[in-house]
Amino acid sequence: MSDQPFSRAAIIGFGLIGSSLARVLRRDGMARTIVACAKSQATLDIVQSLALADEVTLDPAIAARGADLVVIGSPHSTYAEIGRRIGPELAQGAILTDVGSVKGAAVRDLQPHVPPGVHFIPGHPVAGTEFSGPAAGFAEMFDGRWCILTPVPGTDPAALERMRGVWQSAGMKVEIMTPEHHDMVLAMTSHLPHCIAYTIVGTATDLEESLKSEVIKFSAGGFRDFTRIAASDPVMWRDVFLANREAVLEMLQRFTEDLTALQRAIRWGEAAKLEELFTRTRAIRRSIIEANQA
Amino acid sequence: MSDQPFSRAAIIGFGLIGSSLARVLRRDGMARTIVACAKSQATLDIVQSLALADEVTLDPAIAARGADLVVIGSPHSTYAEIGRRIGPELAQGAILTDVGSVKGAAVRDLQPHVPPGVHFIPGHPVAGTEFSGPAAGFAEMFDGRWCILTPVPGTDPAALERMRGVWQSAGMKVEIMTPEHHDMVLAMTSHLPHCIAYTIVGTATDLEESLKSEVIKFSAGGFRDFTRIAASDPVMWRDVFLANREAVLEMLQRFTEDLTALQRAIRWGEAAKLEELFTRTRAIRRSIIEANQA
Repeated sequence: MSDQPFSRAAIIGFGLIGSSLARVLRRDGMARTIVACAKSQATLDIVQSLALADEVTLDPAIAARGADLVVIGSPHSTYAEIGRRIGPELAQGAILTDVGSVKGAAVRDLQPHVPPGVHFIPGHPVAGTEFSGPAAGFAEMFDGRWCILTPVPGTDPAALERMRGVWQSAGMKVEIMTPEHHDMVLAMTSHLPHCIAYTIVGTATDLEESLKSEVIKFSAGGFRDFTRIAASDPVMWRDVFLANREAVLEMLQRFTEDLTALQRAIRWGEAAKLEELFTRTRAIRRSIIEANQA
Repeated sequence: MSDQPFSRAAIIGFGLIGSSLARVLRRDGMARTIVACAKSQATLDIVQSLALADEVTLDPAIAARGADLVVIGSPHSTYAEIGRRIGPELAQGAILTDVGSVKGAAVRDLQPHVPPGVHFIPGHPVAGTEFSGPAAGFAEMFDGRWCILTPVPGTDPAALERMRGVWQSAGMKVEIMTPEHHDMVLAMTSHLPHCIAYTIVGTATDLEESLKSEVIKFSAGGFRDFTRIAASDPVMWRDVFLANREAVLEMLQRFTEDLTALQRAIRWGEAAKLEELFTRTRAIRRSIIEANQA
C-alpha cells in the first residue's frame, strides 16, 4: 500500500462496518480527515459523542467533495441515489468503494455515476456481528477475515493495491473475483443461512404461547445459534435479498429440494439414507476447521 | 438429594453424554463403582485408557446387574433391545434413566421392561457439543444448562428427588414435564435446527467444485454456524428424527410454509414484508439473551 495517508476519507453510511473501518483508519493513521455521513442526525450525534470522525454531515455530496477515499456503507437500496448525489463531486484520482454484501447490484447502481479518472473498486469485507450502528463497531472486527474486491475491468492497478492495503491494514486477507462469482458464493455462505435463520425464528415466533416461552428457555439445543444470525440488521438484509435476488432464489430452490427429500426420508423411516446424509456433512465441517474458518 | 452415594452406577452407551456424566459422578463422589457398557471393544479401550470407569463390559445385562443407578446413553434405536436385556436384572429400588433427546419413544421402548419396584425416570440433559465418543466428554458440559425429566405418573417422589440431585450436582437446572410436551418443544428448539443444518450443509456439498471450495473459505458469513451443528453424531441424530417423527414433521411443515412465503416475497420484491419479518425476529433474540441462554 501507499505509505501516504488519504487526505480526506468519507464514509457514507456510518453503521457497524463503516464505523469499524473509521476506527481502523484512525488507529493506523490512514486518513488525515475522516468524514461521517449518515441519514439521521441521531446517528451523527452518536458519532460525535464517540469522537469517531472529524466531520459529520447528512449530505453525501458534502461528504464526498474533495475526498480521495469514498466508502459507501449504507444499505443497497440507497446506492443509486447516493451515486447520483456524489458523482459530480468525485475528485480525479479518488477511490470509490463500498462494503455491501452484493456486488453485481453495487456495480449496476454505482458505475453509471462514476466519472472518468475516479477508481471504482467495489468491496465486501466478510465480517460483522448481529449488532448494528456506529456504537457497535470496533477496529478488530475485520481481523483474520476475508475481504473480497470485485474491480471492474481496466481498474488502475495502483488504486487496487492501495484499496487492498486498507483492508490488509484492518487485518483482512484480500481476494479478487468477479461480481457474479462473489454473489453466487455469498448467496450460499451468507444469504441462504440468513434466509433460513430468519425463517426458523419467525416460525418459532408464531408458536402457541405455551410452547413459545419454552423454546426460549431450551434454545441451547441448536435454535439459539439461529437467533444470533436472525438478529442482524433488518433493513440491510431486506436489501441484500432483493439486490441478490436471482442467486438467492437459486440457492433457496436447491435447499428446498434437499429439505423436502429429508422430510420424506423421515416420514418413511429411511434410516440408511438419513445416516448417509448426516455422515457426509461432517466432511465439510472438517474442511472448515482445516481452513481455519472455525 | 440423598447424601448416600449410589453403590453401583451403570452407564450403558458411554459416549459424549454418558462419559461426561461418569466424570461428574466420580468428581462428586456420587457412585462407589462406575460401570461402563458400550457396544464396541474399541470404545471400552478408550474408557479404560482414560480410567473413566471402574468396570467395563460389552453386555448391558452384566452392567445393570446389582446396579442402583442405570443410565442409558445410547442411540434411541437400541433402547428396546437394551430394555429387554436389562429388565430381568434390574434390582428393587434401582433408578433407571436415560439421556436421550426423545422422551415419548423412551417411555414406549423401555417402560414395558421395567419391573415393579424399579423407578423409571426418563431424562434429557440439554447439553452437548458437536463431538462424539467418551474422549470428547467433560464434567463441565452440563454446567448452567437445563435438564428435563419426564417421570411417568406415580413415580416415587424420593427417587425423583434423587435423580434431580444427580443433575443438579452436574450444575444443571432441572425441569419436569410430560414426554409429549418435551418432544414438541425439542422438535422446535433442537430437532428442526439440526434438520436444517444437515440439509444446508448437504446442499453446499453438492455444489459445483468451483463454488464448493469457496464456500468453505468464506463460511464466516453465516454458513459456518450451521456446519458446527451438522457435525453432530450421525447415528444419534438419525435415531432422534425417527423417534420423534411426528413432532419433527409438524415443525418441518410449519418451517417449509414460512420459507416458501419468504421465497415468494423475495421473488416479487416485497420489501415491506421482508423488513417486517426480519424486524420481529429480533425480539426472540432479545428474550433469549434476557433468559441467559445466549
